[in-house]
Amino acid sequence: MSKDNTKNTNLNSKVSVSTRDQAIDRFKKLQQKEISVDTLCNAIVSKDTTALSKGITLIESTQQNHISKAQELIEKCLPHANNSVRIGITGVPGVGKSTFIEALGNILIQKDKKIAVLAVDPSSTVSHGSILGDKTRMESLVRADNAFIRPSPSGNSLGGVAQKTRESIILCEAAGYDVIIIETVGVGQSETAVHSMVDFFLLLKLAGAGDELQGIKRGIIEMADAIVINKADGDNLKRAREAKNQFRKALHLYPLAESSWSPEVLTCSAIENKGIEEVWKLIQNYFEITSKNGFFEENRRKQNKFWLLQTIEEHLKSSFYNHPEIKAKLCSQIEAVQQHKLTPFAAARYLFELYKE
Amino acid sequence: MSKDNTKNTNLNSKVSVSTRDQAIDRFKKLQQKEISVDTLCNAIVSKDTTALSKGITLIESTQQNHISKAQELIEKCLPHANNSVRIGITGVPGVGKSTFIEALGNILIQKDKKIAVLAVDPSSTVSHGSILGDKTRMESLVRADNAFIRPSPSGNSLGGVAQKTRESIILCEAAGYDVIIIETVGVGQSETAVHSMVDFFLLLKLAGAGDELQGIKRGIIEMADAIVINKADGDNLKRAREAKNQFRKALHLYPLAESSWSPEVLTCSAIENKGIEEVWKLIQNYFEITSKNGFFEENRRKQNKFWLLQTIEEHLKSSFYNHPEIKAKLCSQIEAVQQHKLTPFAAARYLFELYKE
Repeated sequence: MSKDNTKNTNLNSKVSVSTRDQAIDRFKKLQQKEISVDTLCNAIVSKDTTALSKGITLIESTQQNHISKAQELIEKCLPHANNSVRIGITGVPGVGKSTFIEALGNILIQKDKKIAVLAVDPSSTVSHGSILGDKTRMESLVRADNAFIRPSPSGNSLGGVAQKTRESIILCEAAGYDVIIIETVGVGQSETAVHSMVDFFLLLKLAGAGDELQGIKRGIIEMADAIVINKADGDNLKRAREAKNQFRKALHLYPLAESSWSPEVLTCSAIENKGIEEVWKLIQNYFEITSKNGFFEENRRKQNKFWLLQTIEEHLKSSFYNHPEIKAKLCSQIEAVQQHKLTPFAAARYLFELYKE
Repeated sequence: MSKDNTKNTNLNSKVSVSTRDQAIDRFKKLQQKEISVDTLCNAIVSKDTTALSKGITLIESTQQNHISKAQELIEKCLPHANNSVRIGITGVPGVGKSTFIEALGNILIQKDKKIAVLAVDPSSTVSHGSILGDKTRMESLVRADNAFIRPSPSGNSLGGVAQKTRESIILCEAAGYDVIIIETVGVGQSETAVHSMVDFFLLLKLAGAGDELQGIKRGIIEMADAIVINKADGDNLKRAREAKNQFRKALHLYPLAESSWSPEVLTCSAIENKGIEEVWKLIQNYFEITSKNGFFEENRRKQNKFWLLQTIEEHLKSSFYNHPEIKAKLCSQIEAVQQHKLTPFAAARYLFELYKE
């Protein structure tokens, strides 16, 4: 039974990737007709989902003329953006992120919200879209008119992937989506990147399994505004409640967050649709508190500044490490400092002088 | 009584600063005699404490001829270094860091160890050496032949202060100090900097007071190899034991550290000299385990590489942010992204183009 499931998922996944390739092909043909940025922006603002998809594909493209067109589009959409709430959701594979997002999304749609689900997964180039790539995992959400689901952009660097997702948020907001959910699977520093682009950060966990088994990285717990213990159903119910109490006690030992929000712990069963309404109430409560105390807007301002400086520093680093002289010498310098033959500072000075010349 | 103590400390602090100034004066005069780097290095390696002090003053100097001389000295000392254990100790002011370090130091001296105490405190320029500046706080340690105590180098940037301390470690090791203790007070990112230059990281805490009262920053608990609850004496004893149990439970919820060491929680009373021996046993246990499993050496290699890349990136950033064109334009660009008039990525691209020209 479980083997069959796996097969099924693999199959769907392939179908989905090839569907995506077809969509890109179709888009490229459409592009030849040279839709103007103005037309595209107007269509997005008037809530045309196809235009939104096209806009995001433009953002994800690596072709030079697409890049400048995408920048123009984002600039035009910007005045219509910044009017959603952005929720980050992380958790290891198997924790039930898709089922949880689907359950939460369905509740929001019933409340007349429009929701967009995006993803940050820098590994998706290799795994062909491990998260959200297989849209059929959120079947009911995919079919809903008020939901928009988009797999993680592909790319080798987290910076690049995160930038594309962050730019896509702007288009989604311009298209009138009220709730933007960003899913991440926690590869490398992707949680930190997602944490820096959302208003609320939710960590999904399982009861029973220790963190070492769940592969949660150190530091993630301290970023969470809420920990939700999923699969609190059947035999798992007691363990889930125990885990909730443990986490509540543990979180009390933490310093208060800047938002003056005390992170909460809840249990839910996404598959049985239990406890999801409570999660949404909690998130709403957070938004009420942080809107009143000014943290919400202040945090967005800080995030914008953070991404500006972060991007500059990535440009600087990439220009340094891709310099031919540096490429030729870096390894031997690292080797020398690792063998304690040279101090890191002496090696850094040597390389930096080389770069300046 | 407590008021008297404060006065006394202030007085001592002033004395200490002026003693330091005198020492610098004396050194400058000595410098005019042009001691060769070879002579200085030989004296350091033959365990001459005055030479060690001179060497560190050379590292701390901002004069151009001193900087190059210091680099030469460090290089000559390097083959004699890397043979100590390095312990980082952090905790908020008032937690009893000095008393704790003195108690631990005295135990180590009894065990025929040579210990050096250094500090990283980027705020010390303003506060005139808030930590270790007042050496009289560790009276018995200051008088001991096998102990060497040095206040934090002054400086405006954490990077600069951290570099000087890290280079001083090399001279201390060359002078035969077995245990190097690095104290930090946790200003800005200084804990992260110290964590990246030590083998074992110890967080000192008080019982009862929550983290919000203790001013511990988020993320610090996850860096600690041990949490030691100080002032576990008198009326405090029960609360300290309760805190120990709470932290033990909380730490179990964390993922296993890379060192495969499970962080421990102990209580102690530095002032009554109780529980310090247990702390040292714990630290020794850590060193045994991580030496056997290879983490100790692997971690030092990683730290060296980290400091190399970190220093390069600091050079790059400082060269960028000090560029006249960037200085002129950065504020208005930050303003624009914070007001959602421009994306962070568009602003970054604009500034980077400006810099390249």
